[in-house]
Amino acid sequence: MKKMFKIFLSVFAVLFMVQLVSAAEKSGSTPDFSQVKPVKYVFLFIGDGMSLPQRMAAEEFSKKIGNGKLFINAMTNQAVTTTSSANSFITDSAASGTAIACGEKTKNGVIGMASDRKRKLESIAEVAHKSGRKVGIITTVTINHATPASFYAHNASRGNMYEIALDLVNSNFDYFGGGGIAMNNNKKSKLYKGDIYDLAAKAGYTVLRGTEAVKNIPANAKKVLSFGTTYDLPYAIDRKDTLPLSFFVEQSIKFLDNKKGFFIMAEGGKIDYSGHANDAATNILETIDFDNAVKVAYEFAKKHPEETLIVVTGDHETGGLTLGFAGTGYKSFLENIKYQKCSVGVFNSKIKELGKNPAGVTFENVRKLITENFGLLFSDSKSSEGIKLTAAEEKALLAAFNRQFKNGKYQKSYALARETVRIFNNKCALAWTSGAHTALPVITSAYGVNSDIFSGMIDNTDIAKRLKLIVR
Amino acid sequence: MKKMFKIFLSVFAVLFMVQLVSAAEKSGSTPDFSQVKPVKYVFLFIGDGMSLPQRMAAEEFSKKIGNGKLFINAMTNQAVTTTSSANSFITDSAASGTAIACGEKTKNGVIGMASDRKRKLESIAEVAHKSGRKVGIITTVTINHATPASFYAHNASRGNMYEIALDLVNSNFDYFGGGGIAMNNNKKSKLYKGDIYDLAAKAGYTVLRGTEAVKNIPANAKKVLSFGTTYDLPYAIDRKDTLPLSFFVEQSIKFLDNKKGFFIMAEGGKIDYSGHANDAATNILETIDFDNAVKVAYEFAKKHPEETLIVVTGDHETGGLTLGFAGTGYKSFLENIKYQKCSVGVFNSKIKELGKNPAGVTFENVRKLITENFGLLFSDSKSSEGIKLTAAEEKALLAAFNRQFKNGKYQKSYALARETVRIFNNKCALAWTSGAHTALPVITSAYGVNSDIFSGMIDNTDIAKRLKLIVR
Repeated sequence: MKKMFKIFLSVFAVLFMVQLVSAAEKSGSTPDFSQVKPVKYVFLFIGDGMSLPQRMAAEEFSKKIGNGKLFINAMTNQAVTTTSSANSFITDSAASGTAIACGEKTKNGVIGMASDRKRKLESIAEVAHKSGRKVGIITTVTINHATPASFYAHNASRGNMYEIALDLVNSNFDYFGGGGIAMNNNKKSKLYKGDIYDLAAKAGYTVLRGTEAVKNIPANAKKVLSFGTTYDLPYAIDRKDTLPLSFFVEQSIKFLDNKKGFFIMAEGGKIDYSGHANDAATNILETIDFDNAVKVAYEFAKKHPEETLIVVTGDHETGGLTLGFAGTGYKSFLENIKYQKCSVGVFNSKIKELGKNPAGVTFENVRKLITENFGLLFSDSKSSEGIKLTAAEEKALLAAFNRQFKNGKYQKSYALARETVRIFNNKCALAWTSGAHTALPVITSAYGVNSDIFSGMIDNTDIAKRLKLIVR
Repeated sequence: MKKMFKIFLSVFAVLFMVQLVSAAEKSGSTPDFSQVKPVKYVFLFIGDGMSLPQRMAAEEFSKKIGNGKLFINAMTNQAVTTTSSANSFITDSAASGTAIACGEKTKNGVIGMASDRKRKLESIAEVAHKSGRKVGIITTVTINHATPASFYAHNASRGNMYEIALDLVNSNFDYFGGGGIAMNNNKKSKLYKGDIYDLAAKAGYTVLRGTEAVKNIPANAKKVLSFGTTYDLPYAIDRKDTLPLSFFVEQSIKFLDNKKGFFIMAEGGKIDYSGHANDAATNILETIDFDNAVKVAYEFAKKHPEETLIVVTGDHETGGLTLGFAGTGYKSFLENIKYQKCSVGVFNSKIKELGKNPAGVTFENVRKLITENFGLLFSDSKSSEGIKLTAAEEKALLAAFNRQFKNGKYQKSYALARETVRIFNNKCALAWTSGAHTALPVITSAYGVNSDIFSGMIDNTDIAKRLKLIVR
């Protein structure tokens, strides 16, 4: 009887503590998570430029094509997350990356350092590595771009990409994957010591580059650079034989799994790029691709339910995307997204290609390109499969054609591509207001052990503050 | 010893149940709240057209003028809340009002009925009234407008405002406050029985109308209509001697407090109106005014901490507001909001007034009006207090002037007011994409007893489903 009482007493004590933490959170005061238990396997996914409009546009399209909800929107916990930087309501990816990675606000442009641009900040990845965990950093853009850099580098300016890559080499982290290194052989750098790839190899990294090369990590590899392309990975909408973000997440899990656990940060970096380009279809497919990468972690979590935490966030909203448009009122046509066949950048290169042959520079030929790549139907079209343009829209496209090919000569601009994609977006009942970021909060989603510490309205610095306790 | 064991056992059992509910929620499956305890005092606040952009724009302005965060953003629990209606990704206020009030999706335009436009749905307010609670319904717009109507009426069309008002009279609810009754004496109605105010008096309501009249409810009043104005309450930005939403919340608390408790629904209806008008300053001040009304409930909750639940939500986003704009990039100027002195509607009436005297119709006079009401400074201005216009913006205003006063004659349009407010919004680094609603989810915030059942990503129908258990 006494033994049973003791067991009850200890179970009671544990439950009581859980209640206390919960009560602290309920009171509205800053909750104290200092007693929170570390978790063996920790994933942090960052959708660059991904806030609520991006997540819901992708989900609505996914539902329209019969694929249902996004996994990230169905995760157990969801926290509204403010993103402002130390010097602006609207953050850039360096300040937000640093806030998420290190837990302190800094100025736009600064990587892994305080607002004074001098004091180094410690990242979740560094804490995890110190604690004996293996660490993986993955992105679809270049690996020394602002967001991934915030996890291993310390630099007053995100523009110092060579120096940031030197920090990568010195990080001693176990796995870097996805896109390659920008400015890897920048001889203009005051700290120039040679090509980063050579320096990485000297430091003990196995360097794998290109779609085929990355598919097999040598058995004796201790630390790996696994880069599918020279720079960014192509957009999902343009992808042919290159590898997606999910490949690198899966590979890193296999490579990093060990008894002390791991911390993996994976970024969907080109959600942001397509936001800057106000390219909704590309943005939506990129977000779905990102969701697929999170699902890889979820499959792993199902096998390790007592030892895994998955956190998904965005660093800011990009483009001022809205799920509605003046011209379409209360109607929505997200299903039209399916008609777009390439990113606005690839479409622009097709127009440029057309310009190389002066005889081919006719509005007729441009119309064909527009219909092929966006499903936009001109008034004389005989097709019923696509989206009918209004007379005003055809006129706007003709005007863009005349700007793009002034006196029949190709002008270096995005005039036609931009006008086409603007009209296409509006046909889907979507609109954008900015080529830059906005201050709309993002959503932080969590699943797994301790996921409940991500709820309510939090700040992006709270992510690092809480995850540092989880990866101790 | 045995007694202590029994006590521990029962405390343990209670805590275990709490854990179970929490575990169900964590699993991602629909959580079972059937065991949730009713709460004596329940408040539901609805910001019409208020989603995350509106809340954050208002908060950032509030911080800039030294007033700190909004209360609604600091509430303990925050749940992302989807809003789509039965027939559209983008809901109207009737379908979302019905979803929030009754817990079932219906088609746009339908009030308190299912998608078949026949089957009546039961609202939270009706459940609360049945259980013996007193019920109050408050709004800043007309009381038979879509959102408040969803709590007491059942009609296939929101446009049947006389018939909806008949349902108000028959509801037998205890308190209706804020804006008055639209179409109260619509003799064209097939169900016409007389002026609604007369019918309400006959049904036992004490009818108070106008700012002074509503200030004192007679001691013998059993049921009250307390309407500060004939129709809508004026915008906060235009307010002179009329009463704010907070007055009616405070009054309803005093009138309704009784041992069986109450359910009060209060709507900030004109956040939506200013969203439709793309009028950011008016929208922001309206949201702050709404926040002040929620604070009145919070003051009450502090006095009844074990007996009160406050839930705050929006019914949809209006206008496609974004917290950033192409022309201002990563900078934000929310502090500029302070320069706007009246709503765009009132500004338009000032322009109309100017048009009555042909001699006064000069761009010079219009410029004066613009500077006085928006702080926009033209190139020859000697003032340093305000926002400097660019040459392109001055040109756009001149063009709008020429449209507004074609051949010197006032044209019935919003040309000048719209262009002025568009430029003003952009000067604050804000932009809009639609005159209608968008599908951006809203945020549901909760404070008090059982507030933790509002977290994660929920649907607007979940609000009614859960609150019906709370007001049983």
